[in-house]
Amino acid sequence: MYRTHTCGELRLTHVEKVVTLSGWVQRTRQLGGMTFVDLRDRYGITQLVFDMSLNADLCAAANKLGREFVIQATGIVRERSSKNTQLATGEVEIDVTGLQVLNAAKVPPFTIEPDTDGGDDLRMKYRYLDLRRTPVQQNIIFRHQMAQATRSYLNNLNFLEIETPFLIKSTPEGARDFVVPSRLNAGQFYALPQSPQTFKQLLMVSGFDRYYQIVRCFRDEDLRADRQPEFTQIDCEMAFVTREDVLQTFEGLLRYLLKTVKGYDLGEVARMSYDDAMRLYGSDKPDIRFGMAFTELNQLVKGHGFAIFDDAELIAGICAQGCAEYTRKQLDELTDWVKRPQIGAKGLVYVKYNPDGTLKSSVDKFYSPEQLQTWANAMNAKPGDLLLILSGSTDKTRKQLGELRLEMGKRLGLRNPAEFKALWVLDFPLLEWDEEDQRWVACHHPFTRPRTQNFENITDWGSLRAEAYDLCLNGNEIAGGSIRIHERALQEKVFDLLGMTKDEAQQKFGFLMGAFEYGAPPHGGIAFGFDRLCAIMGGYESIRDFIAFPKNNSGRDTMIDAPSPIDAKQYRELSIQSVIQG
Amino acid sequence: MYRTHTCGELRLTHVEKVVTLSGWVQRTRQLGGMTFVDLRDRYGITQLVFDMSLNADLCAAANKLGREFVIQATGIVRERSSKNTQLATGEVEIDVTGLQVLNAAKVPPFTIEPDTDGGDDLRMKYRYLDLRRTPVQQNIIFRHQMAQATRSYLNNLNFLEIETPFLIKSTPEGARDFVVPSRLNAGQFYALPQSPQTFKQLLMVSGFDRYYQIVRCFRDEDLRADRQPEFTQIDCEMAFVTREDVLQTFEGLLRYLLKTVKGYDLGEVARMSYDDAMRLYGSDKPDIRFGMAFTELNQLVKGHGFAIFDDAELIAGICAQGCAEYTRKQLDELTDWVKRPQIGAKGLVYVKYNPDGTLKSSVDKFYSPEQLQTWANAMNAKPGDLLLILSGSTDKTRKQLGELRLEMGKRLGLRNPAEFKALWVLDFPLLEWDEEDQRWVACHHPFTRPRTQNFENITDWGSLRAEAYDLCLNGNEIAGGSIRIHERALQEKVFDLLGMTKDEAQQKFGFLMGAFEYGAPPHGGIAFGFDRLCAIMGGYESIRDFIAFPKNNSGRDTMIDAPSPIDAKQYRELSIQSVIQG
Repeated sequence: MYRTHTCGELRLTHVEKVVTLSGWVQRTRQLGGMTFVDLRDRYGITQLVFDMSLNADLCAAANKLGREFVIQATGIVRERSSKNTQLATGEVEIDVTGLQVLNAAKVPPFTIEPDTDGGDDLRMKYRYLDLRRTPVQQNIIFRHQMAQATRSYLNNLNFLEIETPFLIKSTPEGARDFVVPSRLNAGQFYALPQSPQTFKQLLMVSGFDRYYQIVRCFRDEDLRADRQPEFTQIDCEMAFVTREDVLQTFEGLLRYLLKTVKGYDLGEVARMSYDDAMRLYGSDKPDIRFGMAFTELNQLVKGHGFAIFDDAELIAGICAQGCAEYTRKQLDELTDWVKRPQIGAKGLVYVKYNPDGTLKSSVDKFYSPEQLQTWANAMNAKPGDLLLILSGSTDKTRKQLGELRLEMGKRLGLRNPAEFKALWVLDFPLLEWDEEDQRWVACHHPFTRPRTQNFENITDWGSLRAEAYDLCLNGNEIAGGSIRIHERALQEKVFDLLGMTKDEAQQKFGFLMGAFEYGAPPHGGIAFGFDRLCAIMGGYESIRDFIAFPKNNSGRDTMIDAPSPIDAKQYRELSIQSVIQG
Repeated sequence: MYRTHTCGELRLTHVEKVVTLSGWVQRTRQLGGMTFVDLRDRYGITQLVFDMSLNADLCAAANKLGREFVIQATGIVRERSSKNTQLATGEVEIDVTGLQVLNAAKVPPFTIEPDTDGGDDLRMKYRYLDLRRTPVQQNIIFRHQMAQATRSYLNNLNFLEIETPFLIKSTPEGARDFVVPSRLNAGQFYALPQSPQTFKQLLMVSGFDRYYQIVRCFRDEDLRADRQPEFTQIDCEMAFVTREDVLQTFEGLLRYLLKTVKGYDLGEVARMSYDDAMRLYGSDKPDIRFGMAFTELNQLVKGHGFAIFDDAELIAGICAQGCAEYTRKQLDELTDWVKRPQIGAKGLVYVKYNPDGTLKSSVDKFYSPEQLQTWANAMNAKPGDLLLILSGSTDKTRKQLGELRLEMGKRLGLRNPAEFKALWVLDFPLLEWDEEDQRWVACHHPFTRPRTQNFENITDWGSLRAEAYDLCLNGNEIAGGSIRIHERALQEKVFDLLGMTKDEAQQKFGFLMGAFEYGAPPHGGIAFGFDRLCAIMGGYESIRDFIAFPKNNSGRDTMIDAPSPIDAKQYRELSIQSVIQG
C-alpha cells in the first residue's frame, strides 16, 4: 500500500494519526534546522516536516529531494502552529518518520506552477508535465464532470448511449475524410467518421428512439488556429419529434450542465431566425449578453448627396451607449480598427449625440442636425451616446458591423465572462453558394429537412430555408442540428438539388435511402462540439486547454512525434506506395 | 407533438384518457368487423382497435396498414375485455379516433420477430431492420446499462474519464496497426490506437491518479470468427497502487456490474497462478464453475510396459463423476472427439470405476485392478465415476485435456449459464516464444513489470514471470492488465530483452522513457474487453450480438459497403497510390 490518504484529505480531525502519503515534491524549504516539503497530488498539497534535531538522517534525505521527485512519506499528523488558510490541508502538517524515494526526477524543462515559464512548443512536447499544472489539471477534471453530467441528464430522459463504427465509408461532402487503407481488401479504404450522422439516423429507423454518444469525430481540413483534426461531439438523435421537442430537450441539457457543473442558473433561452440574426447582429451566432442591435438607416440617409451612402446597398449602425465623449484620437483608432484587413470596412461614420443634446458627426457636411436627430431617434439613442455607422454591400456591411459590435461590447465591458446567455438561431438557409466549387452545397448537411418540399419552381435557391438550428452561447456556436429527411423521395430530391447524380447518390447513400423505405420515423437531432463547450463554460478561449493530448496547428503531436513514416512492410501489406512530389 | 405516451406505458390508470401514440405496425388482425393493430416501439406494444361499425373509413384505413408502417394514432384508452397477461400494456387498448401514416414501409426482407427467418448475411445487410428485433434491441440496451454502471462505479472511486487521441504513432508490436495517411505531412501516417496504453501511462506521470475510458481500439489482424477490427475497451489505470489494489478495485467493478445490471451476487473471486491454471486446467482462463481439475499420473503409470505412457512427457486425467455407465459407443465417440484435428489427441485412455467397485479400463492389458485403484484414489474418484486420461508432451496434453474437461463439463450440465464464477489468473510469463518470428516477444506488452529486475543471468527466459493478471469469467478472459514499469532503466532493459535496439526503442517510445525521468509514480492498470464482457454477462456466445453495427468476418460492413475505393483526388491529396499485385 502506497498511501493511506491523499494529499488533499488531512484535516484537524486526523491529528495524532499515523498516515502514509505519496506524491510529488512541489517545493522544499529549509528553515532553522527544519525542512519543509510541500507534497502534491491531484487532490491537494500537504506539508511534510523534517526536524534535524530529532532525526538528522531523515532530514538530510529530505534535503536531497528535488522538484518533482516522487516520494512516499509516513508520519504523524500534527496541528500546525502557523496555519495556512489558503490550503484545505493548511491546518495540519506531517511529522515524517519514514521517507522513501519512489522515483527521482530530472529538473523539469519548465516550472510546474499555475503560471509557468514554459512556452507553447515546450509545453506541448512535454505535455505530460504541462498536465501536472493545476489549471490544466482542473480543466481536464472539468471536462470529466461535463461528460458525466451530460450522460446523467440524457440517461434520465431515456436516451441510450449506442456506439457507432469508426471504420466507415468515405463519402466526402464538404470536408475531407481521413481514410484508412484496408489490408484485407486491397485498393479499398475505410474512412474515419466526420460524425456518426448516417448511423444515428439508422438507429432511429431501428426504433432506438433516443440516442446519444460522446464520440470522437475526424475532419481532414486545413488547420486553423484552435481547430483539431480529431474532436469530440455530444451526438444526439430523437425519433417522433418536432423541432420544438428537440429545442426543449437540448436547451434543458445546457441548463442542466450550467447548473450542475457551474452552479449557474441559465435564464430563458432566446430564439431568433437566421435572417433576424444576420439583420440585427450581422452574425449567425450573436452574443446576446448585450444589445447594440443594428439599425438599418437606408430610408433616412439616402438622397442627401453623400455618395458613399447613396451608392451603398446597406447603411446600418449601432448605438454605443455613453460613448459620446470619445476623443478624435479614439474615433480615429476605431476607424483604423474597422479598416484592418480582418474587418475590411472602407470607413466609419460616427454621430456623437452629446450630453447637451447637440449632434456632431463625421458627415456634418451632408446632413443637418435635424436629419442626424432622426437617425438618433431611429437608433433609440440618448444624449451621451455614440452612433457608429458602416455602409456597403449588405453581407459585408453586416459582417463588419457585427465585428465592430463585438469589439465595442468588449471595450464597454458588456461581455461579462461570468455571465452566460444562450440563443437558438432557427431557420437556416438550406443551401449556400460555394465560391470555390461554383455550386450550391448543403448549408448544414444533405440530410437536413427543407422547410418546404416543393422547391422545384424556386428560382432563388438561397432563399430556401431548412429545419436547422444552432445553439449559441455567448456568441459561440456550441451545437447545431436539424430535423432530418425521412422519406426516400424527398432525400432524392435534395441530393438532386445538390448536383448529385442518381448513381452517385445510390453509391454513397443507397443504404440510407433504402432504410427510409422500410418504415423510417420522423426524426431530428443535434451535436454539441464538446471541446468548445467545455472551453466556453470553463472560461477559456482555446479548446486545446481542455484536450489532454491536443495536436498543434500543423496537426502534429510533437510529444509522440506523430504522424511519422511507416516501414516498407506496412506499405507492402497495404498495397499502397508513397508518391511525394518534390 | 407526435405522441403523448410510448407504446409501453399505458395501464388501467389511463383508462378513458385521450392519448396519441406513434410507432411501427407489428401486426394487424381483422376479426368480426373489428381491426386490431399491434403498435410497437422500443418501450413495448399497445393494441389499437378500429371498429368498422363506428368508423368505417378509419377501419378501412387501418386495414391497409402493412407491417412496419410508421403510424400515429389518437384515441381513448379502454380496459380490455380479454386481457393479455404477457404484455405490460395488456390490460388496455386504444379505441382509435384518428390515424395518420407517417411513413409507409416495403415488406421487410425478413420478419421482425424475436425468431426471425433472416439469415446472417441478410440481417447484416439490413442491420437497421435486424436492430428492430426485440432480442437485438435488448442487447444494445443491456450494453448501454453496462456502460453507465461501469462509469458509475469508477466515478464513485474518483476515477476520471479522460479522452486520449485516436490519431497516434504507428509502433507495430505484435498486432498490426491501422494507419491513416496524413495529407498535411506527405509520406507520413498516423496510426489508430491498438489501445491507449502509453497515453494512460503518461496520464499517471501527469498525476491524474485514476483514469478510465470506454474507448474504441483497433487491430488490423487477420480476422477470425468473432473478432472485430474495431472493438471497445474499458481502459483503466491507477497510480500509487500495488497489484492487490488493482485486483480489489476491478473485481469490485465486476461484482458491481453483476449486481447492478443482472441482480447477481458474485461470490469470492478466486485466484490462481498461471502455472497452476495450466497444470490443473490446461488453460490460462479456466472455467471454475465446476471442478474436474487435472491429476498428473506420471508416477503411477510409468514403467509398466505401456509404451504410450512410458514415452509421454505428461500423463494426466480428469474424473467425470457418475459417468462409469458410459457405453462402448459413448466412449468411442469421446475418443473420436479428442482425436479431431481441433483437439489433436492421439487417443484416450479410460478407466471405469464401476458402481460395484470393480475397475475396467482400456489398458487392462498393462495394469492390474490394484494399479488402476491407485489411479482412482489419486483422482479422488468414487464408484460410478469415469477416469479420462490423455498423454503426450506437457503443453499439448494439458491443452487437449483442458478441452476435454470443458466438453465433459458441458455434457454433464456443469457449465450453468445462469451462474457466474470469476477468477484472477496471476503471475503470467513475461515473455513467450514467437514460433513465426523465432524470437521472444512480450506475453502481455513491453510495459509490463517483470517480477524480478535481475534477469541478466537468467538462462530460461520462459521462466521469467510478470506482474500481469487476467480476470476470467466462466472460462473467458474478460480483462487483462499489469503493474507497469515506471523507471527508464528497467524499461530499457526490457526493450533490450525483446531485441529492440536502443535507437529503435528511442524512436518508438522515447517520449515514454523520457516521461519516466521526470517523476513517474508506480502504476498499473487493466483493460476489459467491453464487447465480450457484455456478451458473456448477457448470456450470448458472439460479441456481434452486442455491437450495433458490427463488421463481418472479412472486416466489411455490408450495409454501408465499406471499405470501398476512394477517388483519384483523394489519392493525389494523400500522396499515395495503389499498387495491387495481380
